[in-house]
Amino acid sequence: MARVLALLGVGVVPADTPVLRADDLGVLRGDGVFETMHVRGGQPWLLDRHLDRMSRSAALLAIPLPDRAALVELAGQACAAWPAADEAALRLVCTRGPEDGGPVTVYATVAPLAPAAVEARHTGVSVATATLAVPAEARPGAPWLLGGAKTLSYAVNMASLRWAAEQGVNEVLWTSADGYALEAPTATLVWLAGGVLYTVPAATTGILAGTTAAYLLEHAGELGMRAAERLVRPAELHSADGVWLASSVRGLTEVRTLDGVALGPSPETERMQKLLGYL
Amino acid sequence: MARVLALLGVGVVPADTPVLRADDLGVLRGDGVFETMHVRGGQPWLLDRHLDRMSRSAALLAIPLPDRAALVELAGQACAAWPAADEAALRLVCTRGPEDGGPVTVYATVAPLAPAAVEARHTGVSVATATLAVPAEARPGAPWLLGGAKTLSYAVNMASLRWAAEQGVNEVLWTSADGYALEAPTATLVWLAGGVLYTVPAATTGILAGTTAAYLLEHAGELGMRAAERLVRPAELHSADGVWLASSVRGLTEVRTLDGVALGPSPETERMQKLLGYL
Repeated sequence: MARVLALLGVGVVPADTPVLRADDLGVLRGDGVFETMHVRGGQPWLLDRHLDRMSRSAALLAIPLPDRAALVELAGQACAAWPAADEAALRLVCTRGPEDGGPVTVYATVAPLAPAAVEARHTGVSVATATLAVPAEARPGAPWLLGGAKTLSYAVNMASLRWAAEQGVNEVLWTSADGYALEAPTATLVWLAGGVLYTVPAATTGILAGTTAAYLLEHAGELGMRAAERLVRPAELHSADGVWLASSVRGLTEVRTLDGVALGPSPETERMQKLLGYL
Repeated sequence: MARVLALLGVGVVPADTPVLRADDLGVLRGDGVFETMHVRGGQPWLLDRHLDRMSRSAALLAIPLPDRAALVELAGQACAAWPAADEAALRLVCTRGPEDGGPVTVYATVAPLAPAAVEARHTGVSVATATLAVPAEARPGAPWLLGGAKTLSYAVNMASLRWAAEQGVNEVLWTSADGYALEAPTATLVWLAGGVLYTVPAATTGILAGTTAAYLLEHAGELGMRAAERLVRPAELHSADGVWLASSVRGLTEVRTLDGVALGPSPETERMQKLLGYL
């Protein structure tokens, strides 16, 4: 299925239109911010939360993000050109612009989901841990490390996923130098233990604060669960009552093996996916 | 002065021509490799070494870099459109290409040097240390961290330089979690102690192997110095006989203050710059 491309201030253009100059710092330096959202019923889900996070990312990078109304309009233009019955991924991108000080480059794309991503909601995923080599709580004290910012500099994220494929698994769970689980390259860790649904604290670790995970934990009461944040070691996850990766586009995916250890299936997966609207 | 832009297989086009699609992974994921070279007398200096490093970077990212002859031709096209009397910066960029599997995007730009970069050859620079939070020798054992690869994911490099400006200094010297000096965001550390010209070992630390620093150390004998690699702590640099940052475009810049401690000036700076051809 074709993609949709909308440019700020222009509207929808052919998806293969070149839009970035060779000297855009978004290209030369991965110097920009983005968000990816799930499009359902023709609308981006949790748009406000994603725009909040995009604002925080832009502030951390000192990038002058256009005002929210313009971004909402841009997202709307892109989604309006997509069949409302088909789920999709909406991406908003803002780069710093040309090296000599030009304006930011801002665009939205809508694209179909990879079939494997949809299938993983039902089959779960296999995961291997891989170190980020950074202590769990080192980044917030070093703002130049951009903890918590969703930037265009994802080369290590992509390399981690290629490494996973080489290991014969679907996903990576990054760990800290001191042995704690942090996050996946493009998803947030969530686990259930003793009736409590947990995620890793973003504020103290510098991981990305997951929007889908946050929504899930806020609504944990509807599932009869409590919610909390804490650090966890991979070995503890082996005996949890359920382990998942949460992502805006893929939704909630159960971890079925972690470093070769079989996990689950959890009887909660389907209820949680329904709560999030991915089933 | 205007920039030059040359596209692989096309040749020189207007420098503000948009060349990258919105879904190019070089943009969306900082998923690409690059090199920057000094253009002198209309030719890129150390082109072979830079192309060697670009090949290594591309292999680490599993990006199918075009063959060397095509890259040499591209560099030549870009440089031929630049006044031979003016020094400049040549950049070669290769992105992974569109997300759905399109071909790599490859281009070359030639641009003038920032006046401040040229001036720093004479005035030196002030530097503050900032941690990368990674142990000095952690990265080579974790290939997904892309140690040694020159990728387009430079958001942390750029944030480090913005942080430096906020501290009132020109440059950052990244340090490891265990307290060793590593590299600058866009330059290599070189220091002189006891007649030996040192740099930080790239193979064991995962820093970028600097082409300018390598050339300098290979020719240290012509300056009556020996050459070696080792780890060093910032405190040792305070009592070194000279401390420099080496970069392809800026050449050799003396560190004149490090974390507020005055250093130098070294009587060797001018000889070293002459050896490298930047004076």
